[in-house]
Amino acid sequence: MTLQELIIQIQPPDSAAMAAARERQDQLTKPQGSLGRLEALSIQIAGITAKPRPGLRHKVIAVMAGDHGVVAEGVSAFPQEVTPQMVLNFLHGGAAINVLARHVGARVEVVDMGVAVDLPPHPELIVKKVAYGTDNIARGPAMSRDQAEQALLAGAEVIQEQLSKGIDILGTGDMGIGNTTPSAAIAAVLTGRAPEKIVGRGTGLDDAGVQHKINVVRRALDVNQPNPEDALDVLAKVGGFEIGGLAGAMLAAAANRIPIMVDGFISTAAAMIAASLAPAIRPYLIASHQSQEQGHRIMLEWLELSPLLDLDLRLGEGTGASLGISLADAACKALDEMATFAEAAVAEKKSSS
Amino acid sequence: MTLQELIIQIQPPDSAAMAAARERQDQLTKPQGSLGRLEALSIQIAGITAKPRPGLRHKVIAVMAGDHGVVAEGVSAFPQEVTPQMVLNFLHGGAAINVLARHVGARVEVVDMGVAVDLPPHPELIVKKVAYGTDNIARGPAMSRDQAEQALLAGAEVIQEQLSKGIDILGTGDMGIGNTTPSAAIAAVLTGRAPEKIVGRGTGLDDAGVQHKINVVRRALDVNQPNPEDALDVLAKVGGFEIGGLAGAMLAAAANRIPIMVDGFISTAAAMIAASLAPAIRPYLIASHQSQEQGHRIMLEWLELSPLLDLDLRLGEGTGASLGISLADAACKALDEMATFAEAAVAEKKSSS
Repeated sequence: MTLQELIIQIQPPDSAAMAAARERQDQLTKPQGSLGRLEALSIQIAGITAKPRPGLRHKVIAVMAGDHGVVAEGVSAFPQEVTPQMVLNFLHGGAAINVLARHVGARVEVVDMGVAVDLPPHPELIVKKVAYGTDNIARGPAMSRDQAEQALLAGAEVIQEQLSKGIDILGTGDMGIGNTTPSAAIAAVLTGRAPEKIVGRGTGLDDAGVQHKINVVRRALDVNQPNPEDALDVLAKVGGFEIGGLAGAMLAAAANRIPIMVDGFISTAAAMIAASLAPAIRPYLIASHQSQEQGHRIMLEWLELSPLLDLDLRLGEGTGASLGISLADAACKALDEMATFAEAAVAEKKSSS
Repeated sequence: MTLQELIIQIQPPDSAAMAAARERQDQLTKPQGSLGRLEALSIQIAGITAKPRPGLRHKVIAVMAGDHGVVAEGVSAFPQEVTPQMVLNFLHGGAAINVLARHVGARVEVVDMGVAVDLPPHPELIVKKVAYGTDNIARGPAMSRDQAEQALLAGAEVIQEQLSKGIDILGTGDMGIGNTTPSAAIAAVLTGRAPEKIVGRGTGLDDAGVQHKINVVRRALDVNQPNPEDALDVLAKVGGFEIGGLAGAMLAAAANRIPIMVDGFISTAAAMIAASLAPAIRPYLIASHQSQEQGHRIMLEWLELSPLLDLDLRLGEGTGASLGISLADAACKALDEMATFAEAAVAEKKSSS
């Protein structure tokens, strides 16, 4: 499948299913609207899935990993070897995302999109490696345009391959030492905002580290001159393999009417790439949380998304997405399982007030 | 047990357990602090339970129901008969709180603290009825001082009776047509703020209805002159039986080192009564969410609590508390189940940055 063939498959939300869900919400035993954003979420997911009473039985967190040549500039508080080490931690079930995914009943699918070393074979590791890490964006493009397209299609393939196992909602997750730097670069290009408004502390930089990272992002934009009207160009010049994979996974999810729970800073950069390539994806996106990483607010505003949670998270991996999935599940269950006023023989609101 | 005997049982959080939890958080495979409020929550619960790695296996939502004489003033959009109808709905599992409690793995305990009619006997209904609804606070006190103490002790008894079944966290919930009016009155007395800053739409009043409700609260304060230095006086004069029951349940939970997930507007009014009676309860309180009901923000500020969620909920029943309990559970699981850097052989942060 080509990228264009994937993109044109994305349909608008189903308005009949949304209307039916809205009507049912108003008949359930509670004051109308009193479940607030849970009601809105259930109606959105009805539209996405084209089901008036959607159920989110199969929950998937796709955690995509990749390395970044820009770590040579000293932009991260952690060494690059942590990327493969954390991938192994995911496979052994010891990372935060494993714990939170278990908590919300989601399965974690770990994807090597471009880790800088070969990982030991593991039955649960999905290998879609485009290359051994990107090139240093402070000195030239992260990858070729062909590799950018390859990353997007590989991410889409991951979702296609999950369909037979069942996938009713996709949570996005990332791992890649240094990946807040390309994410900030993508956000700066697409929003047109200055790097200093977007760049944050990542895994724990001090003030001097942040200033240096801002300079590195500026240099990446100067050297590469990514074209904000061409998202593939942006991904190729200042992106990452896991970011491309996540954007492709989002496109495929939307093409299959699967709601997308977007994680934090890196996943939101991927969502911006996806939304630039395919504006029709926007109604499929749900922002799980407001990251503590500076710039995330600007990115969510650009996507016109309002985050469900604000818990000062800044971990990535899909941790925020997993908590958001639990809220989406709660929203759909309330819509489906609550009794109506008629079923429970409860009196309705007085017409006079 | 007397109220004073209950109150003096409340101990400060265990600082050794908190220190151990904090130390472990810093060894887990994630950048330090990157799980944000989940980390803080796990440390708070370690202190409350005096366990360095607490587990929240038994989750309980206590939904307390009562009626309010002040409905005679036309302060609610729903008729009073809805209180017993919703109690039956809780017992049959069809209400929002049933769905959300199932979702988070909590059991719902339904308590009749003072519904205006006799409910049909049901094996799962806990009957602690103080009286058949309060008196109209716009014309005199809601209840006698003795009844206020009786409500508090009955609420405490509910928790004592749950200990044998297991209760690792308490979520509070309420049902009572008209109960945002006494809750607003309590909040106005204890914070010293004007009723118009606190009174909200409840289950769905229009602007004229809100103005009328403000006038009713003003009258309740004028007629009763509750003493803000005497929480028992406040509860008796402008409170409610379910509000007293919830405050008593909170005191008993704290006395037993059980964390308290406070629901919305009504539960927060109850928490204010509890914190006025026993300032030592404050570290045991967790605010689940910011209600859409006006005034809730002022009440949380008075309690110095920062809500975990902000989802425009305004339903009560413990719906916000149940979602908060899921976050507390996630926080404790992350603390307990994640691998350390040493266990997972993951490199730590570079010392240079």
